[in-house]
Order: sequence, then structure tokens, then C-alpha cells
Amino acid sequence: MTGTLEQAPFLRACRLQPASHRPVWFMRQAGRSLPEYRAIRERASMFEIMRDPALTAEVTLQPVRRLGVDAAILFSDIVAPLDAIGVDVDIKPGVGPVFGRPVRTAADLAQLRPLEPDADMPWVADAVKQLVAELGDIPLIGFAGAPFTVASYLVEGGPSRTYVHTKTLMRTNPALWRTLLDTLADISLASLRAQITAGASAVQVFDSWAGTLSAADYEAYVLPSSKRIFDGLADLGVPRIHFGVGTGELLGLLAAAGADVVGVDWRVPIEVARTRIGPGKAVQGNLDPVLCLAPWEVVEAAARDVLASAGEAPGHIFNLGHGVLPEIDPDTLKRLVDLVHTSG
Amino acid sequence: MTGTLEQAPFLRACRLQPASHRPVWFMRQAGRSLPEYRAIRERASMFEIMRDPALTAEVTLQPVRRLGVDAAILFSDIVAPLDAIGVDVDIKPGVGPVFGRPVRTAADLAQLRPLEPDADMPWVADAVKQLVAELGDIPLIGFAGAPFTVASYLVEGGPSRTYVHTKTLMRTNPALWRTLLDTLADISLASLRAQITAGASAVQVFDSWAGTLSAADYEAYVLPSSKRIFDGLADLGVPRIHFGVGTGELLGLLAAAGADVVGVDWRVPIEVARTRIGPGKAVQGNLDPVLCLAPWEVVEAAARDVLASAGEAPGHIFNLGHGVLPEIDPDTLKRLVDLVHTSG
Repeated sequence: MTGTLEQAPFLRACRLQPASHRPVWFMRQAGRSLPEYRAIRERASMFEIMRDPALTAEVTLQPVRRLGVDAAILFSDIVAPLDAIGVDVDIKPGVGPVFGRPVRTAADLAQLRPLEPDADMPWVADAVKQLVAELGDIPLIGFAGAPFTVASYLVEGGPSRTYVHTKTLMRTNPALWRTLLDTLADISLASLRAQITAGASAVQVFDSWAGTLSAADYEAYVLPSSKRIFDGLADLGVPRIHFGVGTGELLGLLAAAGADVVGVDWRVPIEVARTRIGPGKAVQGNLDPVLCLAPWEVVEAAARDVLASAGEAPGHIFNLGHGVLPEIDPDTLKRLVDLVHTSG
Repeated sequence: MTGTLEQAPFLRACRLQPASHRPVWFMRQAGRSLPEYRAIRERASMFEIMRDPALTAEVTLQPVRRLGVDAAILFSDIVAPLDAIGVDVDIKPGVGPVFGRPVRTAADLAQLRPLEPDADMPWVADAVKQLVAELGDIPLIGFAGAPFTVASYLVEGGPSRTYVHTKTLMRTNPALWRTLLDTLADISLASLRAQITAGASAVQVFDSWAGTLSAADYEAYVLPSSKRIFDGLADLGVPRIHFGVGTGELLGLLAAAGADVVGVDWRVPIEVARTRIGPGKAVQGNLDPVLCLAPWEVVEAAARDVLASAGEAPGHIFNLGHGVLPEIDPDTLKRLVDLVHTSG
């Protein structure tokens, strides 16, 4: 089975190798827009699903079955490892992660400790093993948050539009900031290493909100900690995807952090992104998810624009520029998969 | 007095001419963070202030008195002209503009009609005349919304994070979309012409949310309508500023729409912005407003970074990359003005 998995179009594209077809998957493909997921959510919270290997495997597999995507991504949340080490965090429906004690001072760091995946969240490796057995030649992508985006929730206490406390802490106490980000990097790294050891074939590191930073600030205050994750995975030899929204100015730095694949949102055409990212890296993206709410002709035209911008060179993984919106009809995603698969 | 006004550093910088000092003003300098403004807001709503020339003049002047900025900007809101032509719109505290009947179909356009500034909002010209008399050699900037950003509120019915209805309408009914944007452009154009006729020395067109669009979409669906405003002001000879947030990919197009000055947020250094905007245009920006909540050493260092990136060439107007946040201490803004004025 391993030989077949290694030939998977998704993994070949990550490695800039020609593939039998262009691979496609969707961020947040597991969850939200799928009725079979919502049925499970009626009886289980996000954390209850994440802590139950059978439920995690089920919601991770749902989009593979329904949509025919070229990769599964472990159902998780960027704050799951924090919950596992006892941090007071809740995922509030319609809001997002909310923390009981925001990190503003050195004393607040006491609630963090290193993650021991086997002891703290054994259900993750169990779910990964179960998934890998069921997925066969479909790769499973491991999931973790990048230190800046996790820190932004932790410092603000929840979602934010301005990142006031985060940016202030970063500038006023760079030593504390660096300790916080390195601690979070090591937690994500430990989680990803455990996922890979259990069988994940690739990983994606989500730095969804890094686009709020200038390139200078990203480079000075964030990149070194994110690089810890990518460097710490190098010996395992799996493709490492690095993703953020509104990161047009940061694409070269996201690559420089050690990614093999850089995710791009819809604001930067794939061909332009390639020049910013530089040679030797694959690119993932970049259909505006909002357009998936329009009639099919609109979706199709926009998807064809993405395909045209990406061209025929190996190393493009089709995806949205951000996650699937809850309102998107799964049939639209299915048609998109078929379109990408038949587009050459 | 006119001769002195024409020598104002702000206007000279807009025209790429050397000035006695580098000019500075702040978006949203009038309002929110000033206690003297909040005192007025305790007895008057936003619309009540806007409809009263004396109150408009007072809140417009407050930051000039307190901060010593190089320009005043007319206190207004991008939906003020829509209110003036009878559209059902409210500005909800903590939310923003909310419309009674969102525009989704051709029938919804019936609530819009051309703006006749003298008849529909005579208080604006009255306020401008009063302000110009009081401001002397300090220029007054006229204020209007760009068609995309106004349309986004009107189509969504209020503020949005995804612009789902806006992007869908744009793609599915480009003819209706174009009619809507041209109608809004003509309303903003009429308002700005009236402000200039009454004495405004420059204008700023706010396309705050254009950064959600790719360059291709901006060029196809938005630029022609925004260009109507800039072209329609050309005969009046006043500097035209074009501003948006997260517009790194759009800077060249914002300039191409006909702007003399392009506003830049903190994500793109001024020196990089200049290459994207091209020659013959001034640049305005770009300190991250969030940093103004940090201790002064942080603000000062970040402001000096902006100054260093802008360099000594004429044609830089110091500003924030977005509006003043309500939590910002006016003393910080005052110190910023002094820093910019003494930095050469």
C-alpha cells in the first residue's frame, strides 16, 4: 500500500513531481458545510469529537467519501494541544477559541508546559492510525497552528480584529513574546511529530492571521519560532505546507521558514505567488471561498482562472484561499473536484 | 490667505513639492479618541453632528487644535450622502452602517437617486465654508466613500467579514453591479464637487475594504466606477487621495484610477509602495494604528521606521495605515505630530 500512497497525486505535487492528475482538497473540508458532520455535532462538541478517535476518523473521512478529494486532513483545531495540556480554553460556536486567562505577563505563561502527545492526547495517534488504515492510498495531512496565530488567540483571550494586545506584547516585551512563541512552536512540533509517527503523510501549519503583520515584523518576531517547527520536522521527510490569509507581502518569508508548499489566498495570482515564493517550492490555492456561494458558472470561471494562472508545471495543489464557509453547498465542492481532476 | 494656504506643507507634499516640514494628519483624527468629541456625542448622534454645520465644524476642528496636524478632514461618514437622499440607513454604535433594505436586485436600486448637494445636504457646504474661514492656512480635506466600499455595506445590509452578497452580485449580475457602482460614484462625485466648491483644498476617497478583492476583480468590477470620481474632479485641480486597507496588490490600480496621492497601510513599506504606485504620485501612510496603544518608545521606533522608509524625497504625507482607534491616547498622537514635524 505504501508504494501506492507515495504515488498519490497530492504528495507528488508537494514534491514538484508530475502526477496523474492535479490534486485538490479544501481547507475545512471536514465539518461545517456537510450535513453528515452537522448530525454528529448535534450530539458531540468540537472537543468531544477531537478526543474520540472513532469520531475524529469519521468526520475526517466524510469529505473524502463525499467529495473525492485527493487528501484528508485530520479534524482538529489549533488550540487542541493547549486544551490537552490543561489550558482553560473553550471553542464557542459562532465565536471561536476563548481563553479563561489571556497571556499578558510572564506569570501567565505558567499555564503552558511542553506537550507529551502520547500522554496528553493519545486519541490523536489512535485516530491517525485508524485513518491511515482506512484511507489506503489517500494521504492524510497532519494539522497544527503556527505560533503567531495561536499566540494571537491566547494573548487576546479570543478572536480579535486588531490584535492590539498581541502586537503590543510583541513590541514591548520581545523576550516574553519569544518565549511564548517558542513554547507554542514546540507544542505544535511535538503534536505534528506524533501525527507523522502515527502515519500522517504531510502536515499543514496554519498561520491564518499572520497577514496582519508587516514583513519586517513577521521576520523579526515570528519567523524564527515558525522555523523551529519546520526545521524540527525536516528529518521526517514529509511535505510541510505553510498557510496564511492576506500574506501577499509574506510569501517569500513563509517559504523561508522551511515550508515545502506555500498556501496562497485569492489576492495573489498563483503565477505571481510563484515568483515571490521562489523556486523549488510547491504552491497551494487559491479560489476565493466566497465565490463558491455564487451560481456554478461563476465558480467554474473563477476556478478556471486559478488553473490558468497555475499553468501546467508540476507543483500546484488546488485549494481554496481560505476555509470552506458553512453556507457552501457540498455539491459545489464536488463539482470543483471533478473540474480540477478533468482539467489536465 | 490663499497664497499661504497654497504653501501649506500638506498640499505641497500632495503635489510632490518640497515643503517646510513633512506634513502629518490622522484618519479618524476627528472623533472617537478625543474626550471633547465624546462630550458632544453624549448629546448628539453621528447624523445629528453631520447635519449641523456648527457641530460638524467643531468636531472637525478639535484635532487641529489639540494635535497641531497639517490638515483637517471634514467630519462625515461614507453613508452620509445616502442618508441625505432618503435611503434607510442608521449608524449603529459599535457596529457601523446598517441598511433597512439591502440592495440585491434591480428593484432595490429604486431607493437610490442622484445627489443634489445644495438641496439634499446644504449643511455640508455651510460647514465647509465655516471651516475654511476658521482654518486659515490649514487645508481642509473633503470626504467621500468609494463605490465598492459603500456598495459593500449597501449590498450586505451592514458590515461584513466575507462580502458574500457583494462578491456574488458582482459576479452574477455585472450589469446591475456596474449600475450600482456608477450610481454611487456619481453620488460621491457630486458630494466632493460641492465640498471643493465650498472651499475644500483636497479630497480623500475611502475604499477601505477594496483589499478583499484580487487585482483582476478590482480592475474589472471596481476601477472603472472609482475612476469616474477621480476623472470627474480633474477640472477642479485639487489633490485627490485614494485610500484602502490591505491593498498591497492593488496599489498600482488605486493610482491608475486617477489619484494624485495613494494611501498605504502598514503591510507595505513606503519605499516598496512607491515602486508599485509608480512615479508622479505622492504616498500617504503608514504607521500601524494598533502600535499607538503601545508605550511611546514603541510608537517612536515604528514611526521612525516609516520615516526612514519614506526617505527625504518630497511627496510623503505621514498618516496611520488605518483610522485612529478609540482607545488611542490623544497625547500619543500629539507626540507623533511633533516627532514628524521635527524629523526633517
